Amino acid sequence: MSKFRFLTSGESHGKCLTAIIEGIPAGFEINIDLINAELKRRQSGYGRGERMQIECDTAEITSGVRFGKTLGSPVTVVIQNRDFENWQKIMSVLPEDFTEEKSFTRCRPGHADYAGSIKYNHKDLRNVLERSSARKTAIETAVGAVAKQILSKFNVKCSSKILQIGKAYENFELEIDKAKEIGDTLSGKFEVVFENLPVGLGSYVHWDRMLDGKIAQAVMSIPAVKAVEIGQNPLGFSGSEYHDEMFVENGKITRKTNNAGGIEGGMTNGEPLVVKAVMKPIPTMRKPLNTVDLADMKECQAHFERSDTCAVEACAVVAEARIACVLADEVLQKFGGDSFDEIFRRLGF
Amino acid sequence: MSKFRFLTSGESHGKCLTAIIEGIPAGFEINIDLINAELKRRQSGYGRGERMQIECDTAEITSGVRFGKTLGSPVTVVIQNRDFENWQKIMSVLPEDFTEEKSFTRCRPGHADYAGSIKYNHKDLRNVLERSSARKTAIETAVGAVAKQILSKFNVKCSSKILQIGKAYENFELEIDKAKEIGDTLSGKFEVVFENLPVGLGSYVHWDRMLDGKIAQAVMSIPAVKAVEIGQNPLGFSGSEYHDEMFVENGKITRKTNNAGGIEGGMTNGEPLVVKAVMKPIPTMRKPLNTVDLADMKECQAHFERSDTCAVEACAVVAEARIACVLADEVLQKFGGDSFDEIFRRLGF
Amino acid sequence: MSKFRFLTSGESHGKCLTAIIEGIPAGFEINIDLINAELKRRQSGYGRGERMQIECDTAEITSGVRFGKTLGSPVTVVIQNRDFENWQKIMSVLPEDFTEEKSFTRCRPGHADYAGSIKYNHKDLRNVLERSSARKTAIETAVGAVAKQILSKFNVKCSSKILQIGKAYENFELEIDKAKEIGDTLSGKFEVVFENLPVGLGSYVHWDRMLDGKIAQAVMSIPAVKAVEIGQNPLGFSGSEYHDEMFVENGKITRKTNNAGGIEGGMTNGEPLVVKAVMKPIPTMRKPLNTVDLADMKECQAHFERSDTCAVEACAVVAEARIACVLADEVLQKFGGDSFDEIFRRLGF
Amino acid sequence: MSKFRFLTSGESHGKCLTAIIEGIPAGFEINIDLINAELKRRQSGYGRGERMQIECDTAEITSGVRFGKTLGSPVTVVIQNRDFENWQKIMSVLPEDFTEEKSFTRCRPGHADYAGSIKYNHKDLRNVLERSSARKTAIETAVGAVAKQILSKFNVKCSSKILQIGKAYENFELEIDKAKEIGDTLSGKFEVVFENLPVGLGSYVHWDRMLDGKIAQAVMSIPAVKAVEIGQNPLGFSGSEYHDEMFVENGKITRKTNNAGGIEGGMTNGEPLVVKAVMKPIPTMRKPLNTVDLADMKECQAHFERSDTCAVEACAVVAEARIACVLADEVLQKFGGDSFDEIFRRLGF
Repeated sequence: MSKFRFLTSGESHGKCLTAIIEGIPAGFEINIDLINAELKRRQSGYGRGERMQIECDTAEITSGVRFGKTLGSPVTVVIQNRDFENWQKIMSVLPEDFTEEKSFTRCRPGHADYAGSIKYNHKDLRNVLERSSARKTAIETAVGAVAKQILSKFNVKCSSKILQIGKAYENFELEIDKAKEIGDTLSGKFEVVFENLPVGLGSYVHWDRMLDGKIAQAVMSIPAVKAVEIGQNPLGFSGSEYHDEMFVENGKITRKTNNAGGIEGGMTNGEPLVVKAVMKPIPTMRKPLNTVDLADMKECQAHFERSDTCAVEACAVVAEARIACVLADEVLQKFGGDSFDEIFRRLGF
Repeated sequence: MSKFRFLTSGESHGKCLTAIIEGIPAGFEINIDLINAELKRRQSGYGRGERMQIECDTAEITSGVRFGKTLGSPVTVVIQNRDFENWQKIMSVLPEDFTEEKSFTRCRPGHADYAGSIKYNHKDLRNVLERSSARKTAIETAVGAVAKQILSKFNVKCSSKILQIGKAYENFELEIDKAKEIGDTLSGKFEVVFENLPVGLGSYVHWDRMLDGKIAQAVMSIPAVKAVEIGQNPLGFSGSEYHDEMFVENGKITRKTNNAGGIEGGMTNGEPLVVKAVMKPIPTMRKPLNTVDLADMKECQAHFERSDTCAVEACAVVAEARIACVLADEVLQKFGGDSFDEIFRRLGF
Repeated sequence: MSKFRFLTSGESHGKCLTAIIEGIPAGFEINIDLINAELKRRQSGYGRGERMQIECDTAEITSGVRFGKTLGSPVTVVIQNRDFENWQKIMSVLPEDFTEEKSFTRCRPGHADYAGSIKYNHKDLRNVLERSSARKTAIETAVGAVAKQILSKFNVKCSSKILQIGKAYENFELEIDKAKEIGDTLSGKFEVVFENLPVGLGSYVHWDRMLDGKIAQAVMSIPAVKAVEIGQNPLGFSGSEYHDEMFVENGKITRKTNNAGGIEGGMTNGEPLVVKAVMKPIPTMRKPLNTVDLADMKECQAHFERSDTCAVEACAVVAEARIACVLADEVLQKFGGDSFDEIFRRLGF
Repeated sequence: MSKFRFLTSGESHGKCLTAIIEGIPAGFEINIDLINAELKRRQSGYGRGERMQIECDTAEITSGVRFGKTLGSPVTVVIQNRDFENWQKIMSVLPEDFTEEKSFTRCRPGHADYAGSIKYNHKDLRNVLERSSARKTAIETAVGAVAKQILSKFNVKCSSKILQIGKAYENFELEIDKAKEIGDTLSGKFEVVFENLPVGLGSYVHWDRMLDGKIAQAVMSIPAVKAVEIGQNPLGFSGSEYHDEMFVENGKITRKTNNAGGIEGGMTNGEPLVVKAVMKPIPTMRKPLNTVDLADMKECQAHFERSDTCAVEACAVVAEARIACVLADEVLQKFGGDSFDEIFRRLGF
């Protein structure tokens, strides 16, 4: 049921991250600078560790685009790992390169380590960590940057902001500095807003077509997100307080509130789409947690790999990207068409 | 990517609700009484209106089961609408029965009415209401009741409880009585718990295989749900406070906390799966909201159709059902097999 | 990737056959007489056995349509089994009705019996036969009849004809009479043609979007079909003989041949779509085949259940239906839109 | 419904071809030499043009494999285009590199050119040709080579042979030499056989699970394939001649014939799976066809790009690959499991 479909791949310290996007109509101008700008946004934000400087991700398109425009064929986006030189032995594809350097067996609570080792029968937890890493959100951000460009053709605008970091509603830097000092990490809450969406994306006719459900999946599947809300959390509100009454102004329907966050009946209703999410504190900490070494089943301290104090800003950027993919898919399905010329001719643009 | 797949259909006052479930292995004993028990649970709960008495849903299986066991072929579940007699003219399939009786044009805020009328080009909002109704969750509950029975074969247990109604954390009846008296409706929060799940359902390897994402979609796509959380909402917690440390007891890994709600890295981690959700207050109120009549674009009072004061208990039952479908799919994929004999032989049961 | 999606269910002697179709835009007039006409065509044709008289299938719509028009919600089609009265004990859903009457263990070569019994661990081969029966094509024909009606809104026309029965290219009745007399069955070949399809359905950009591939699946998945061809089978032709040269007539592109059968590069090319298929002889014969009884692993004669001598005409009707589903999906994806009013406004109809 | 899922990308003269394969269990040893061996087989065969020498494809794995074994995460396979140096301006991603060199507007009959130009609104037919090229089958062959390695773990063996080239059943070289001399191209027929498949892959329970249907799609979606058969084409056979009787030998079921080609009721039945297909003659010929120039709508001679006389052997290799993908998916679904250790433990290997 999806038109804008994609697969992504790549390990945290592997050679590169890759995405193949299938279903973009032809004749769409892709601006690679805008992709790179999103990748940069994802790496920014107060509270990030050193790796962000090493990464400095840039995207390359290796298929599906010619002379700046989509061909209608699958678009491939690749982000090289700039640090790969230092990891090529450790992450080698070849059996003869086998090494236990950088392998580890102490589960990090809050990570995929424990369940991943059982599911995939991995003794070396690096085999889990490398894919379960938040690094994979870089390529998801690149895919979302393409989706955003499609949406912007339909005049859809996107933004996000931080609502809370740790216990602070403002002056987040101070909160982050304090946590960093003691080697701890911070949770936070953010909000993503999409404006100008056409009315009627998504549908109530079948559960798997409800737009709020699709958005919730997109956001909750970002590593570290534990809570998702659409619009104003209704907890404690009565019906007469919560629902957004409708009025007429200059012959048009208007509302004075947007508690519904732009979605009624699983569909966009013309008001700004507002999605909020809570990110848990990063579980890799200098101040380590008690855990278990799977090699000998003894209690120990969790393995520490260099990390961030707070990545809520990055998480918001990824959430924008992930929601943009859902919306681009909906818009392309709604308008049909195999080329942007056709779509815009239909829309009278 | 789904083995337990299904489609549902049916209008609120139509002849019947139907579901076809494809992908259940053969040789599985389906107990129809357990399906009906779930349907009854969904209709119970303090604060429901009169319709619940009329409904008194019972399921019939019309395919895929012989002598109490699944054949491996698609299973069809039908719930007849007991009130259909009174609606057969109004909901008739036939063009010659056209009538404007029971049609309406005044949008109800908080419902699909407005966006649905634009999306599907419906002048009569009944054409929207009939499918966007929460009535469709009855058949989803029936499908979920089948999923639960599958899970119980793997010793998985499921329960739910109410956490908050309106502003009350307990004595919910009083809160509901007060709201009913003034014709208002109430929001609420509930929790669903699944115990005994195998470690490693879901996966971190690709965004659309993350179990938390799938669960979030399942729950957020229930009409009226606006917020979903997995485990303890991490807002305000630091890393050292939040993550669930691991210990060894009698040679086995244990935890003293379950803030993660049973999911790490998008997978079950062996702890109870805990999902919380917030339901908005029902938007159909005796005390009506200001709105717009689409027929003349004039402001007016919203249309009132007999309704409940609070349906949070029912919503929790539906959430159990919806999550059970996700988990049954995961379990069936994990263990493979085309018959339950084969599955259990593999598992050494 | 599919908009017109559906599930079907039902056993051969079960209570009913059911289909749920999800994805039909709103405001589409469904004519149930046209569905029944297709069901009748499927039951006709020279060489059919007695069951066809018993069946006399008629479709009922139980959801998704009001006053003759689609609502946008899932459409349910049900075909009751008129003979169910005589089978309700044997096909009962209830465990307490268990009986071995009508059970059998002698595999019928050419049927699903053997592989089905192993796959689903069925001792009683009736548990296989009941779903593997060609009976299920009745409900597929009903779904296809809806798809055809959608296509006819776009002026697409469909027809089919028999090319060969047994060894005869004409006078098929005689061939069938001879086979019937000796208790044998006949294979045959037929052709389905769709005219007026828009150029560019399907796509070369990804293997699973190639229209010829989708059509081949649709037709080969009809029970008893063993060969599928698009257009003229190219075997023995050279490039200069085979390919359809292009000419200009009155400023428009024309062709003098249609060896490609209307598909180039996995897309419709504006010429009639021509699909041919070969149906194997029905494997249930009065003159029985040597086989094995799975109960005692002894050689024996195959179980005989009343059957047809030749069902090639019926098979062609089913093929029309199955291909229509593929094409309706493609057309709806191409034009987008949630209501037929919207689609036709776009198309300037 | 698919576990072994993949997307492919890449233009004929673009930088590279890429595939991402999602769903391979962990701990599976991938042998890259076996992938390259299949790529070489695809480029071999009597009657190929010069490009095959230039190509000499080799695969690189850039994700999902570490020290020779799969991690459970998506596997990326890349085939660099060795000739890209000469095409990088013509196939540039950048708008500023726009050039009309190598562009063309004369439709080649038998290719995607005409329909593709309309569907995707391409004026320069190179924008169609680059993806509709058979070049994309190289990466499909690589994906299939991975699927074959998975199947070989289950002892499944695969082979293919040519049945006919042009009008010749043997001495194909002579036929090809003659065609080459006059600048013509040849059609042909081949057969692919898979042995040792478990009984019960595929299913009769729903049309989209029929294995013959899936195989037909896989093979018919190979560019230039116009006909697909499973087993012996039944045309002209009666029921008593065609069906494969069953016998008992040493307590096991045996058959003396395999007309069904290993599939009954849409499932493997334990006999060798036999698939035949007819490839049309390559439509790019030195001896050009009459066609139309889309730039001025005048009749003209078709554009000629260096080509092969006959590629039936290559087509057979691609068919092996494509069918292997379908079968690997079925096998992985049947056995479940997230690591090969788990799968083999279950199977008692």
